[in-house]
Amino acid sequence: MTKRFDRGAEIIQELYGDFGSAFFEDLEEVAPDFGRFIVEFSYGDVFSRPGLDMRTREVAIIGALTALGTAERQLKAHILGAIKVGATRNEIVEAIMQVAVYAGFPAGFNALMVAKRAFEELDHNTDSRYADE
Amino acid sequence: MTKRFDRGAEIIQELYGDFGSAFFEDLEEVAPDFGRFIVEFSYGDVFSRPGLDMRTREVAIIGALTALGTAERQLKAHILGAIKVGATRNEIVEAIMQVAVYAGFPAGFNALMVAKRAFEELDHNTDSRYADE
Amino acid sequence: MTKRFDRGAEIIQELYGDFGSAFFEDLEEVAPDFGRFIVEFSYGDVFSRPGLDMRTREVAIIGALTALGTAERQLKAHILGAIKVGATRNEIVEAIMQVAVYAGFPAGFNALMVAKRAFEELDHNTDSRYADE
Amino acid sequence: MTKRFDRGAEIIQELYGDFGSAFFEDLEEVAPDFGRFIVEFSYGDVFSRPGLDMRTREVAIIGALTALGTAERQLKAHILGAIKVGATRNEIVEAIMQVAVYAGFPAGFNALMVAKRAFEELDHNTDSRYADE
Amino acid sequence: MTKRFDRGAEIIQELYGDFGSAFFEDLEEVAPDFGRFIVEFSYGDVFSRPGLDMRTREVAIIGALTALGTAERQLKAHILGAIKVGATRNEIVEAIMQVAVYAGFPAGFNALMVAKRAFEELDHNTDSRYADE
Amino acid sequence: MTKRFDRGAEIIQELYGDFGSAFFEDLEEVAPDFGRFIVEFSYGDVFSRPGLDMRTREVAIIGALTALGTAERQLKAHILGAIKVGATRNEIVEAIMQVAVYAGFPAGFNALMVAKRAFEELDHNTDSRYADE
Repeated sequence: MTKRFDRGAEIIQELYGDFGSAFFEDLEEVAPDFGRFIVEFSYGDVFSRPGLDMRTREVAIIGALTALGTAERQLKAHILGAIKVGATRNEIVEAIMQVAVYAGFPAGFNALMVAKRAFEELDHNTDSRYADE
Repeated sequence: MTKRFDRGAEIIQELYGDFGSAFFEDLEEVAPDFGRFIVEFSYGDVFSRPGLDMRTREVAIIGALTALGTAERQLKAHILGAIKVGATRNEIVEAIMQVAVYAGFPAGFNALMVAKRAFEELDHNTDSRYADE
Repeated sequence: MTKRFDRGAEIIQELYGDFGSAFFEDLEEVAPDFGRFIVEFSYGDVFSRPGLDMRTREVAIIGALTALGTAERQLKAHILGAIKVGATRNEIVEAIMQVAVYAGFPAGFNALMVAKRAFEELDHNTDSRYADE
Repeated sequence: MTKRFDRGAEIIQELYGDFGSAFFEDLEEVAPDFGRFIVEFSYGDVFSRPGLDMRTREVAIIGALTALGTAERQLKAHILGAIKVGATRNEIVEAIMQVAVYAGFPAGFNALMVAKRAFEELDHNTDSRYADE
Repeated sequence: MTKRFDRGAEIIQELYGDFGSAFFEDLEEVAPDFGRFIVEFSYGDVFSRPGLDMRTREVAIIGALTALGTAERQLKAHILGAIKVGATRNEIVEAIMQVAVYAGFPAGFNALMVAKRAFEELDHNTDSRYADE
Repeated sequence: MTKRFDRGAEIIQELYGDFGSAFFEDLEEVAPDFGRFIVEFSYGDVFSRPGLDMRTREVAIIGALTALGTAERQLKAHILGAIKVGATRNEIVEAIMQVAVYAGFPAGFNALMVAKRAFEELDHNTDSRYADE
């Protein structure tokens, strides 16, 4: 495995833990290389870059996924990741409400429902990586 | 005028200055109330909320507009606004590159071209509100 | 509560009744202010404006939501609302088919499936506000 | 030519006149059959259906094109068409503002700028088919 | 029935068999004419054109539906159709991964999950029209 | 430079020649690493994969970019690339018309206008890499 892979895998483990693993398991049979690209490129090449802190990266991603409206599973993962690197639940809700102005109220509403499910998952999760704000 | 309007107008003036005014002038003849909604609602009600700092709000908006790909004029304004409230040019470039992973390379490329034009405008602008990073 | 809120709440109650309430209940815990913005701004400021009749407003919204393809829950509510203010089921089907030309056959098909579910709900609903056409 | 073609061509001529012709001229060299499909299917099969009046059809289309944000040329044509079949300028502005709630403020703003250009074109057009409202 | 209808129906039967029929059954009650348009126009007029082979047509459609991200049911049908006219499972996975570069990783991931379900359906299907690659 | 970079750069030069270079020059000042990612990842990692021929890859990309409707510059490049690796002008027109069924007539029309400009560019280009079909 490459350094890019190792660097990406480390970030993914830190941010999403077992929740992240499910994405790769689902890809395992159908397109394992796509999983490798996520690790190497999305995280190893891009997310790990030094010029922007991880919390702000996750907010930019949450803004994008809220606007797209077609990636609820990914949005949930990034909401969990944002909390892991220091965003509070309230900041995530504010970011989504802010984006609703630009992407429309339904996009905002639907993203808030995803946030709600993510928060509920955290409340029933004993995984110490996700400390409540 | 309402308090909501005053609060929104103040933020818009602080963030975008004369650049923001052009949006309202363009609306003046065709739909002045839409301009008022932008001031009262988008800024007076939402952007001014205390739960998230203005720099992070602008990053979430930049993420959303990069993903939508249909709002270059607005994206340019928010890139200028982000710089005004403390984001560096490099942070904006990083946020757009990060979003490209989720919205595709063309969305990222096109947003970077908008950022390039915004930066060039800043370089030729003697308006002291926009200090180079 | 503001006049904007009262005006919006009255329209929402008239258009969607208990169906509309479910949206606000879902927001209650995670982002109650977003629910307030829907009432005050979406309905109190915009939908209640005199320049366009409510039936035509709902048709424009149905056109937009059909094209977006990411807001099935909202589309269903607006189909019910359109019927409440005088659109026939057939007119709604025609509007969606018309939009399919511009947004693609899948967008049209998916919106028709939402309309089908909305119509079935009406058929099993004894709420007198929804009279069959 | 088919009856479908004749029926579609008649509606297009009535709604858009020479403005509509430009679309077909642009297609003439690269894909004339696509122009034929627009006439036969979009207008001959769909737009001409009896179940919904032409003004409401144009409003649904304006709603969809405002939401898509990627079809400014088409949006301008349909704004002109809506006026031709009885919508007032003010009703079109209201419909776009209404859609902005669901598709975001930038989508609304950009569509209003298209409407502004369409209205200016009407003001400088002596073509009697477009009577000012 | 028209020649256009017969030509379209024949292709649909060849490509999707009973899987395709479900779309038309779902439309039967709410909008049977939309089903007729799919047969006559989408397949009878467009898909049946001689200038591009059916396998490449299905790849272009898979590219579009992957990018749109709002048509999973249709994407599944076209993945099955692509296999029916000669694309291998691996080629479909490659096409989706290729599109992910342009439409974003979530669009690619979600389309791969649809492909996975389509492949599983094929594995449990004794319908001889779908030979495993 | 990495092997991934060399492999990607070779493909880009083969497909787009000087036309491709313009993208990288535009990125040079604002985000050179994004240009590197395009070379290394989009082409070095993905496009160069053996499981799908280059002509079919370009068709899948053209399908996606036609559907997105927000990447005309990129669409033009990929139309030129598709021709370079064996697609005829007519096949590209057919692919776009096919996608219009799924992404809407405006998406199809706009992509055909891009194709028209690409073809005109080829007709005035003495670069022997682009042989007319």
